Amino acid sequence: MIHNFYINQSFNFHFDINQDVFDLFVKLSNDCNHMHTRDDYAQQYGFEGKIMHGNILNAFISYFIGECLPVKNVVIQSQSIDFKKPVYMNTKIQLVATVDSIVESVNVVIFKFNFLNNQNVVVAKGKIQIGLL
Amino acid sequence: MIHNFYINQSFNFHFDINQDVFDLFVKLSNDCNHMHTRDDYAQQYGFEGKIMHGNILNAFISYFIGECLPVKNVVIQSQSIDFKKPVYMNTKIQLVATVDSIVESVNVVIFKFNFLNNQNVVVAKGKIQIGLL
Repeated sequence: MIHNFYINQSFNFHFDINQDVFDLFVKLSNDCNHMHTRDDYAQQYGFEGKIMHGNILNAFISYFIGECLPVKNVVIQSQSIDFKKPVYMNTKIQLVATVDSIVESVNVVIFKFNFLNNQNVVVAKGKIQIGLL
Repeated sequence: MIHNFYINQSFNFHFDINQDVFDLFVKLSNDCNHMHTRDDYAQQYGFEGKIMHGNILNAFISYFIGECLPVKNVVIQSQSIDFKKPVYMNTKIQLVATVDSIVESVNVVIFKFNFLNNQNVVVAKGKIQIGLL
């Protein structure tokens, strides 16, 4: 254990992907690819409708690390994400993150995480490595 | 080569991290950790001032994939990023991405990328895997 982190420690949060979140991400990224903005275009490729930008989920990772941990003096050192399923507008997203390993000698904590949709299906998964300062 | 992609093909774009971009990201993520919002706090940990959220760079990745490729019918399948150096307010960020591999059988293209700051120092690097639909 370091700084209140221990192996298999679990964190669980909910985030909403709604029109406000989508609009903010589009303003931030300027990514208006039709896959994200037009239902008819996305449907041509077998999706139910326009798909949300995967990097909206990465913004939720920032919140998790910056605001939800037992310590605040942390920085993200690296992160990875695999997008498994499309995410559509008006989805309540659950983030489940678990402490996977701790490297005490360098004050590093590594999390594994899953993002799940309303139907409890894993839509993305990945890893985050943080440094405790 | 598939769909106009070829090995070592290179892409180069600039993005500004300024107050507008920062404010949008904070609104999107709700990550107000003092490391990102208070110069004096970040300076306690050896930074020059408050450090920008790493996931702002991931929003730029969305723009690169969604808007800057020779084809539009693409989705990000996975991405990873290592944050090497802090990024401060009012930085012009350069993204240099290169096609690292192509898996024709499954219509996959993998990029390696570097983000560089005003001083041409690599601040982050990583990989992006996209699927062509």
